[in-house]
Amino acid sequence: MANVAKKVSWSGRDRDDDEDGRAGETTPLLNGTGPGAAGSGRQLTPSPFLRIGQLSNVDLNEEVHELETEVPRQRPNEIPHNEKLLSLKYESLDYDNSENQLFLEEERRINHAAFRTVEIKRWVICAMIGILTGLVACFIDIVVENLAGLKYRVVKDNIDKFTAKGGLSFSLLLWATLNASVVMVGSLIVAFIEPVAAGSGIPQIKCYLNGVKIPHVVRLKGLCYKCPSVPYQAVPTGGLASSMSSLKLPSLLFQIFEYFRRDTEKRDFVSAGAAAGVSAAFGAPVGGVLFSLEEGASFWNQFLTWRIFFASMISTFTLNSVLSVYHGNAWDLSSPGLINFGRFDSEKMGYTIQEIPIFIFMGVVGGILGALFNALNYWLTMFRIRYIHRPCLQVVEAMLVAAVTATVGFVMIYCSRDCQPIQGSSVAYPLQLFCADGEYNSMATAFFNTPEKSVVNLFHDPPGSYNPMTLGMFTLMYFFLACWTYGLTVSAGVFIPSLLIGAAWGRLFGISLAYLTKGSIWADPGKYALMGAAAQLGGIVRMTLSLTVIMMEATGNVTYGFPIMLVLMTAKIVGDYFVEGLYDMHIQLQSVPFLHWEAPVTSHSLTAREVMSTPVTCLRRIERVGTVVDILSDTSSNHNGFPVVESNPDATQVAGLRGLILRSQLIVLLKHKVFVERTNLNLVQRRLKLKDFRDAYPRFPPIQSIHVSQDERECMIDLSEFMNPSPYTVPQEASLPRVFKLFRALGLRHLVVVDNRNEVVGMVTRKDLARYRLGKEGLEELSLAQT
Amino acid sequence: MANVAKKVSWSGRDRDDDEDGRAGETTPLLNGTGPGAAGSGRQLTPSPFLRIGQLSNVDLNEEVHELETEVPRQRPNEIPHNEKLLSLKYESLDYDNSENQLFLEEERRINHAAFRTVEIKRWVICAMIGILTGLVACFIDIVVENLAGLKYRVVKDNIDKFTAKGGLSFSLLLWATLNASVVMVGSLIVAFIEPVAAGSGIPQIKCYLNGVKIPHVVRLKGLCYKCPSVPYQAVPTGGLASSMSSLKLPSLLFQIFEYFRRDTEKRDFVSAGAAAGVSAAFGAPVGGVLFSLEEGASFWNQFLTWRIFFASMISTFTLNSVLSVYHGNAWDLSSPGLINFGRFDSEKMGYTIQEIPIFIFMGVVGGILGALFNALNYWLTMFRIRYIHRPCLQVVEAMLVAAVTATVGFVMIYCSRDCQPIQGSSVAYPLQLFCADGEYNSMATAFFNTPEKSVVNLFHDPPGSYNPMTLGMFTLMYFFLACWTYGLTVSAGVFIPSLLIGAAWGRLFGISLAYLTKGSIWADPGKYALMGAAAQLGGIVRMTLSLTVIMMEATGNVTYGFPIMLVLMTAKIVGDYFVEGLYDMHIQLQSVPFLHWEAPVTSHSLTAREVMSTPVTCLRRIERVGTVVDILSDTSSNHNGFPVVESNPDATQVAGLRGLILRSQLIVLLKHKVFVERTNLNLVQRRLKLKDFRDAYPRFPPIQSIHVSQDERECMIDLSEFMNPSPYTVPQEASLPRVFKLFRALGLRHLVVVDNRNEVVGMVTRKDLARYRLGKEGLEELSLAQT
Repeated sequence: MANVAKKVSWSGRDRDDDEDGRAGETTPLLNGTGPGAAGSGRQLTPSPFLRIGQLSNVDLNEEVHELETEVPRQRPNEIPHNEKLLSLKYESLDYDNSENQLFLEEERRINHAAFRTVEIKRWVICAMIGILTGLVACFIDIVVENLAGLKYRVVKDNIDKFTAKGGLSFSLLLWATLNASVVMVGSLIVAFIEPVAAGSGIPQIKCYLNGVKIPHVVRLKGLCYKCPSVPYQAVPTGGLASSMSSLKLPSLLFQIFEYFRRDTEKRDFVSAGAAAGVSAAFGAPVGGVLFSLEEGASFWNQFLTWRIFFASMISTFTLNSVLSVYHGNAWDLSSPGLINFGRFDSEKMGYTIQEIPIFIFMGVVGGILGALFNALNYWLTMFRIRYIHRPCLQVVEAMLVAAVTATVGFVMIYCSRDCQPIQGSSVAYPLQLFCADGEYNSMATAFFNTPEKSVVNLFHDPPGSYNPMTLGMFTLMYFFLACWTYGLTVSAGVFIPSLLIGAAWGRLFGISLAYLTKGSIWADPGKYALMGAAAQLGGIVRMTLSLTVIMMEATGNVTYGFPIMLVLMTAKIVGDYFVEGLYDMHIQLQSVPFLHWEAPVTSHSLTAREVMSTPVTCLRRIERVGTVVDILSDTSSNHNGFPVVESNPDATQVAGLRGLILRSQLIVLLKHKVFVERTNLNLVQRRLKLKDFRDAYPRFPPIQSIHVSQDERECMIDLSEFMNPSPYTVPQEASLPRVFKLFRALGLRHLVVVDNRNEVVGMVTRKDLARYRLGKEGLEELSLAQT
Repeated sequence: MANVAKKVSWSGRDRDDDEDGRAGETTPLLNGTGPGAAGSGRQLTPSPFLRIGQLSNVDLNEEVHELETEVPRQRPNEIPHNEKLLSLKYESLDYDNSENQLFLEEERRINHAAFRTVEIKRWVICAMIGILTGLVACFIDIVVENLAGLKYRVVKDNIDKFTAKGGLSFSLLLWATLNASVVMVGSLIVAFIEPVAAGSGIPQIKCYLNGVKIPHVVRLKGLCYKCPSVPYQAVPTGGLASSMSSLKLPSLLFQIFEYFRRDTEKRDFVSAGAAAGVSAAFGAPVGGVLFSLEEGASFWNQFLTWRIFFASMISTFTLNSVLSVYHGNAWDLSSPGLINFGRFDSEKMGYTIQEIPIFIFMGVVGGILGALFNALNYWLTMFRIRYIHRPCLQVVEAMLVAAVTATVGFVMIYCSRDCQPIQGSSVAYPLQLFCADGEYNSMATAFFNTPEKSVVNLFHDPPGSYNPMTLGMFTLMYFFLACWTYGLTVSAGVFIPSLLIGAAWGRLFGISLAYLTKGSIWADPGKYALMGAAAQLGGIVRMTLSLTVIMMEATGNVTYGFPIMLVLMTAKIVGDYFVEGLYDMHIQLQSVPFLHWEAPVTSHSLTAREVMSTPVTCLRRIERVGTVVDILSDTSSNHNGFPVVESNPDATQVAGLRGLILRSQLIVLLKHKVFVERTNLNLVQRRLKLKDFRDAYPRFPPIQSIHVSQDERECMIDLSEFMNPSPYTVPQEASLPRVFKLFRALGLRHLVVVDNRNEVVGMVTRKDLARYRLGKEGLEELSLAQT
């Protein structure tokens, strides 16, 4: 034990060899992020609330002691998986380069021209990301369109055949079976092979851009699994997730260019991928850039933004070109995005000042409905986490939802009997179903079209196309079905269903308004459908700036920008009053250490001293190999970063911080046997190149795979040229908001806390900051768990 | 001298009392930023190039010695005002709060509800900024419109009168006099009263958002002076600056709310003001936000962005409402911005893939023409700095330009004789001038309309409205006139003139193309006018993302987003190959310590040790009042931030860094006599409140105005509770890009460089970072001067 490492505790004075600590970060459990792992959590830190404001003057050593003794006592407790936990299984990305000697030497060798080449390569990669994203989006669009057509034909043929014979129940059965079987295939893939493909993908991307390493999220394999499961989501829900999957492309490109093998560059390219995905989905390049920035950016860099914008533009252009050719009108570039809301002609449909209070009222409604949606989905997700965590159960649930959707749809079609003249209508798949000849059943149409098409119909069909009863029933049913669907083990998002729900009640609202005002010309139901869609989506996901721009670009109209913004803002404010956004909720339910934009407002009372993890495992600048191996092998404290201190401190020299070295770097050093015998310290140790580190990126071998003989254990390793000699530090007195700002703005992974003499007293990592949250009763602290 | 202060040099071992140093920042010379101050510079640091890469192993003390002895030798040299200088007169904003005990105590007292109130106040202020900006923009619009109408009528009446008599020369004289006299008034105001109102205001705002304190830029007085001078710019040049002036509004609001009296909040509100200004000018709320972010943001904060967006939206909405009412069509909100490019109907005018190479070619042309414009303006500006630096000369030059503009216009109108049928044309002020009845002179129209209207005409007039010769002549003349005008002592920008030049040659290009392709339907001259305008503006100012969105919003059309982006990107890349953007050029010519987005790529060879200012004047935690007064009174080194070190270091305790205190804080302490007698150190010194500091903000009294008696000089002052106990620090080994990133991302003003024992070895301020630049031959270092 004495050999393990020197540990420095709170004040740097009393060192002990206790293994228990919560410093550094832990390695992830290697399987998926699914709820299956729930319930196995161990609580590592006991105090749910720090006694805020009382800590500053108490004896610090006593405080440590108390923490340390409490830890083992609470450990055996089982903690239910809930949002008051923070999982230790997520690692952090390192947006800060390790500026060690090797890195600096390489950078100094590179001249100006070479830097220009690197910059050009970055642009090329962004262009490739854009092109590939566009192509994948095209592929998805074409497949979805054909599948929807196929489904329509099969169902229609059968209904035609059996309606004649009166065998309606058989039609229902057929439809339900069809739905359930396609969902089954998609669900099987997600549940058994690639859990990360579940859901819309947006929460995962949000986390990744925030700096949390989500396993598998940027792997090419994910894309391969996601693609086939995508078409099924058109049956019965949304279609956004499709394009989000293209986020996985950057990693392919990233393999090709060796220089870019670092978290910094990778995250930049993922940002570009996210922007390109949104851009292709909605034909909204600016909206894509803003999405990427709103969700991910920490430090806004102009050059990076331009590259992201470039990727977005290329992506929507590629999609546009290919789809234009596919639809036979080559060269005219008429299909800017997968999801096109149709053009609102602003000359015909402006808005007047009197309508603004109405829009705000719609925002309020959207906020309340969104909050209701999120609350229902929260309970449902908690239920799923507790009881439906086996893959086979998940598949069964998905199939059940599909069957129920079909049944509900069928019953509603049967009951509503809302027949509309087929002439002059723009619907793609009119179903006659119980209607007179020359008419179509509008409820059936709403269920049978892809949801994207239904949204467009609700926006643009002339007044009088929909029966208010139909819309009301449809809203009600679809609301609950969509809520049930989100979180299922299929690749299905919430974007399009939300828009559809909102468009339905918005149109209903518009119709009522026209009725109340006796058919005033300004009460165009299509306009209110648009506002309702914005309100509902805003109430659920709580995005504002990027969503405003996406809606503006998807409708090809800037006139409605102001009312859309008002509606989104109102929906967000109202919704936030009740519960948080759907994505944030799911991120929290996954116990992801997500860093928000700012530290909680009332956290000025906490200082780095109270926040940091301690004691910290430090390494000496010239360290025994055996010690390094023991530290790395220690499974109870899987630290990823180790402060390096001076080797032989004497009276005149304090053991001040000299640098920081990462687990991955140590592993590469051990693998290449970079050390010298203790008796022969003057020998030069083997020199490594930066390439050796890059080759190992991003999957460094585990320490167990590296064999170190007993003789080698006694050798010494000089860390000077591999450690980062200038890690960022904060003094113990710094307040939490200050520490947070530094950590967040620079995208750090490790932040060393030092005392007045530059001695290491603690370490701040992502989870130390993410665990403080503003709850209903003020500042609260989440518990850490291994779930 | 021994009493002055403890100074810590490179290694912290050898202290000396030499007054010469370049640490900290200097107070500004209090008068304007005009070129009048040129030529009086003193060079403080001698070495134009650090011997890069050689420093790491030399004896540091020797290095210091060398620097110190060289300084006095070079001091008397006169340095011509050029772009290789960095002025010491600009101060930096402090985006980092001084987290001293008072601040923390206040923050800790404030509960959650109070923070919500603060947040609501922020929103209210943003709304007020938006409303006021909108109103100011309305006022400007109405005045400009009426003045343009007045001018048109006066000139037309006279021309009509005198043309009959053949007295053309009198008409010319009248026109020229009219132009010159209005310009004179504007010029007099700018030259003698408020120099900061000169130009477009964009470079000033860029600097402010970058963190440079430009005197007077956010003062209400500036707005008052700017407003009356604005109308004149419609005669003969641009009209953007108008709206930019509204940036000055935030400071008014800012006076009302006491809590917000810090640089952090002020800068946020100025960002909102900038966004609101652009938003009102172009009816481009998203473009405004992006402008503000592209030019200013360092750390992207979601909440801040939303507030800025809100202010933008409110501003364009206010403008829209008021102007709609003014124009008699209340409620219909048909005037989204001051400058409206008219709606491009995308159904009629899409673009095809074949046109993309043509657009790129136009981007190249725009880039070359833009570079030419900037190069010409550069020489002109150098000429002005050297020879036209007296205010009266500046006024004469402005009048000369106005008269020449009128003359050139007149001659061209006379020569061109380009008559167009008046029917079906949309021009507001058709001038018959030498044309047959029922026709108007299109050259005269181009000169007589406000430039905004001319741009719209060039975009939307049907093919055949312009004679190619007219367009060519107009482009040529206007190019040189605009180039001459920019930088004059009037409030005139470059935005609209650039658009006009670009629209003219773009339309000419479109006409030629239609001619060459024998009138193909796709070669619509209006579309090419738009692309030409984008190319020219992009080539001059080099904005991309925000400009793309501004153009998209101003044309109310998202279809052209992709080609506009391509054109802007190409223009930027081509232009950057020759010279930099106009705004950056002027910022550099003003020797402003402007921080770009990243450190120069090849600067990894420099470390904090080589970059920092040294020696640093440090204060002890408990310091003698006399020492503080002496340090503050020392005019040779007007430092603004002082590291605080431990009072009585002994063998076991090093004199490590304890905090950082600002000049402004020290002055408030002295003013309130916050000190105790040396013999009575146990007495509690007077307690101050944060309010005492805020009341003094932002104009702290000079040290000379504070009387300290001889007895008081012997008292002691305890800085512990007023200093920031956790200033950001970097180790000496940190590379320049690393230091730069920390400084830029957090918007710092002072960054302390410490050694391994946490002892102060140097200080990095804005000018230490801004002076490294990537020149043609690699890294170059600017000299510092008092200009």
